[in-house]
Amino acid sequence: MNIVKVNTKSSCYNINISSGRLKHINESIPIDTTSIAIITNNTISSMYIDIIKSSLKSIHKPIIEICLPEGEEYKNLHTLNIIFDNLLKNNFDRKSLLIAFGGGVIGDITGFAASVYMRGIRFIQIPTTLLAQIDSSVGGKTAVNHILGKNMIGSFYQPISVEIDIDVLNTLPKREISAGLAEMIKYGLIIDKNFWEWCENHIKNLINLDQNHLIYAIKRSCELKSFVVSKDEKENNLRAILNFGHTFGHAIESVLGYGKWLHGEAVACGMIQAAELSSNILNLKRSDVERIRSMIKNINCPILAPKIDIEKWLHAMKVDKKNTNGEINFVLLPEIGSSIIKSVSNKDIINTILITSTI
Amino acid sequence: MNIVKVNTKSSCYNINISSGRLKHINESIPIDTTSIAIITNNTISSMYIDIIKSSLKSIHKPIIEICLPEGEEYKNLHTLNIIFDNLLKNNFDRKSLLIAFGGGVIGDITGFAASVYMRGIRFIQIPTTLLAQIDSSVGGKTAVNHILGKNMIGSFYQPISVEIDIDVLNTLPKREISAGLAEMIKYGLIIDKNFWEWCENHIKNLINLDQNHLIYAIKRSCELKSFVVSKDEKENNLRAILNFGHTFGHAIESVLGYGKWLHGEAVACGMIQAAELSSNILNLKRSDVERIRSMIKNINCPILAPKIDIEKWLHAMKVDKKNTNGEINFVLLPEIGSSIIKSVSNKDIINTILITSTI
Repeated sequence: MNIVKVNTKSSCYNINISSGRLKHINESIPIDTTSIAIITNNTISSMYIDIIKSSLKSIHKPIIEICLPEGEEYKNLHTLNIIFDNLLKNNFDRKSLLIAFGGGVIGDITGFAASVYMRGIRFIQIPTTLLAQIDSSVGGKTAVNHILGKNMIGSFYQPISVEIDIDVLNTLPKREISAGLAEMIKYGLIIDKNFWEWCENHIKNLINLDQNHLIYAIKRSCELKSFVVSKDEKENNLRAILNFGHTFGHAIESVLGYGKWLHGEAVACGMIQAAELSSNILNLKRSDVERIRSMIKNINCPILAPKIDIEKWLHAMKVDKKNTNGEINFVLLPEIGSSIIKSVSNKDIINTILITSTI
Repeated sequence: MNIVKVNTKSSCYNINISSGRLKHINESIPIDTTSIAIITNNTISSMYIDIIKSSLKSIHKPIIEICLPEGEEYKNLHTLNIIFDNLLKNNFDRKSLLIAFGGGVIGDITGFAASVYMRGIRFIQIPTTLLAQIDSSVGGKTAVNHILGKNMIGSFYQPISVEIDIDVLNTLPKREISAGLAEMIKYGLIIDKNFWEWCENHIKNLINLDQNHLIYAIKRSCELKSFVVSKDEKENNLRAILNFGHTFGHAIESVLGYGKWLHGEAVACGMIQAAELSSNILNLKRSDVERIRSMIKNINCPILAPKIDIEKWLHAMKVDKKNTNGEINFVLLPEIGSSIIKSVSNKDIINTILITSTI
């Protein structure tokens, strides 16, 4: 099995990566666990819950399953309360364990529920989308959305382990594989030129879900993310570079309505926009901007932003958590493999939007 | 000024105690604060907000006031969302500051809001009830209630300072002074026999709000609470002794409906019940049980529990966060000034309820 060790100020834990990991989930349950809630959705549950339940049989603990409605639009305080209702009705206590079994939405909301139920209980991440496996399940950011902004309510709270079974990717829609690959190449762009070039050379193998290539790329992505998180768990400085492409991306998601574009698709397009902005104000080479655009095209993600009023773009970007003092901050690339954070004038933002959007 | 230093694993900060502290609140605002929200209720606001606003004028920051509905029954996710709405509408960012200006309800909900807004922003406690000054504002427990249990949703999150102005106690209803004194004598009972005896000897001065006695007793209470919290911030063991009287007390509050009895009144009665239980199974001296009963009477708190069905008592006590494995745990006194945690049989619990309740 491939293991990535995550060390943050608040805790340390393993990311276990393998084919067939679901069957061995019982190995990761702490012995003093009093009860377990598997938090999931109908799609995942119908395909895989039996494998997990069968593995958990051996440890003889009470288990409940909580199926949440699917989609980013349900990642809110109301759905959170559904979890609390179920936990309290079933007398879940401080030694109970939550298992987040699903994509980023399930992981974010389950992590947040675990962080505040009785002021914090343990949880395990079993991410079932590529995006969740390489990004949202790693690093301990939990959140729900508010009608006025994405991920505005949440916490920094680490799982006791992350369990990645690459077999589940075989049933994932192609569109979601593409969205996950977008976040994967992001790591290369912001911090590891070698990994970016490896991705350029092996993108076909990744799209075709070749097992060895997948495991290498997922492991490297988790290593890069946990390196950044271990340096700066609470996003006081370095961690913010992980938001490359996200300022534009979040604005697209929030204006179109969550769920219309996948998060990874919005970030993919946002990375092209951030690359254009980098070219404009940091002199990122034009050839590199085109390499990025061509990679996004190869992974079948959108290369043009949707048509949105400039006022709406700016308003949506203004509520980004990276901002302070009303200035809009962006993660930008001086070159591929290196990134900085910089506040940008409205004029430069507007120019970039005009050249990167559908007319 | 009197200062108590609080050191926990996650942070350290001061509790500043004086007469007239409100006028100097500007001294405690961090220089990089971008905006301030004072979270309060109409009663407190109408009496004291001008003093705070006038002090804050000198630091030239945008200030908003958020008035919440009054009472424990509004300490829930819905009211929390009112806070988020206001913060987001006013573009509050990660360098914004919340000020909890009120009693325990305001402090608990503001602290929780601060801990999860954008995954955590800074906040200051200005407790305006005696109970909040000596108990809920100290130690970083934040929470809201769930319909199935009190304080079930929350976090451990420390303020950057606690500002106690004893002058505000002059306008506090007598009943609330009594409720605060109940938690004050609790500290003596569980951990400091000398302080218990000092309280016995000076209870009249405290009831009459004598300034010097008040400052001494508030400071000593804060010292005792922060000593316990510094040893065990997240209530893995020692901190649970602070719940002396609370297992019965919470049940009373939850069955009667929050707000009917004040929290301190329910705890006062619960302490008599826990003392009787201690006498029954730990041989706490009968004379000590009577000293406790007589003290509760002297501070004008209830000495008899309300008439409640046994089933309802047990059910309400079963959802207490101290419990694990379905057993009900109690904080009990082997003698005055010392405490232990012990699971108790239903039979012993029922016996105690029968001899301590209104027939």
